Amino acid sequence: MKTSIHAVARETYVPALRTLSRLLDKGAEYAQANGIDLAALLNEKLASDMFPLTLQVQLACHHAKDGIARVTGQEPPKIENKELTFAELKALVDRTVETLTALSAKAFDGAENRRIELPLQGQRLFESDGFQFLCHWSIPHFYFHVVTAYDILRHNGVQLGKRDYMKDISGGFIRQLAQA
Amino acid sequence: MKTSIHAVARETYVPALRTLSRLLDKGAEYAQANGIDLAALLNEKLASDMFPLTLQVQLACHHAKDGIARVTGQEPPKIENKELTFAELKALVDRTVETLTALSAKAFDGAENRRIELPLQGQRLFESDGFQFLCHWSIPHFYFHVVTAYDILRHNGVQLGKRDYMKDISGGFIRQLAQA
Repeated sequence: MKTSIHAVARETYVPALRTLSRLLDKGAEYAQANGIDLAALLNEKLASDMFPLTLQVQLACHHAKDGIARVTGQEPPKIENKELTFAELKALVDRTVETLTALSAKAFDGAENRRIELPLQGQRLFESDGFQFLCHWSIPHFYFHVVTAYDILRHNGVQLGKRDYMKDISGGFIRQLAQA
Repeated sequence: MKTSIHAVARETYVPALRTLSRLLDKGAEYAQANGIDLAALLNEKLASDMFPLTLQVQLACHHAKDGIARVTGQEPPKIENKELTFAELKALVDRTVETLTALSAKAFDGAENRRIELPLQGQRLFESDGFQFLCHWSIPHFYFHVVTAYDILRHNGVQLGKRDYMKDISGGFIRQLAQA
């Protein structure tokens, strides 16, 4: 395999979005089994001034789409901050996976050296090439929201382990050895 | 910039380890200002069966070193699971940064196609090339522990924002525009 910006993007966002979908399902199962209001679980947060689970999921999807859009020279998505139901959140993750998997390798032509300019609050500007943008902006933000979603669910009693986080990310590369 | 496995590694682990060092300092400042036992803060966790802050930091360092060691064909480190003081944790992060920054680009020759075989619990084996190993094992584990360290501190009242997480990761690419 040739390491490329297309490969970095392809091997990062989609597997972890599938993780997010799995984590949401586990949360829903837990809520149902324990008589917990799923909407309330989606509004849980780790600190009063942090974003709730629903927004962590939305922001993970945002950063995945935004990262790919910017390095492939498309119009970046607007951040949406809505109260979404469980079904809407799941659909958002699924749509994001579909959008990203539909992109051909060709869309990434020139992505490596594409000039990225991202205006930030406080009259600041993030400037880099496409590869640096993925490593120094998009991917760290993306994992922040995926992992925080996991941490919120875990903190609220959902029975998860590291394997639930890693299964869709690493599963394709793991094989069961013959038992002794 | 040419996207390479060396670039992916260089642009991922060291910036986020510097974040981890900053987060620990913020935790120590908060503990001191609020008369909280720093050792107790290091033992905080988000769920009774999750690892405490001190181990999240140790595992982030482990995955950074392990990822680089395996793709460059060196002996991977053993996971250490010790009760470390604040000073020892900070020193561990600093040593990890030093180890990784000392590696030359030449050490990564052949890393992309290097065969990685990682035995897992339950008679399972993770098998991939070097690039897939970074994307599907090392980096997702690494971010898991960095972000969970942030989430533990945040959940315990330490005044942090996303900028504390992103500052060392993105800072080199952000410039202040002239005020209007």
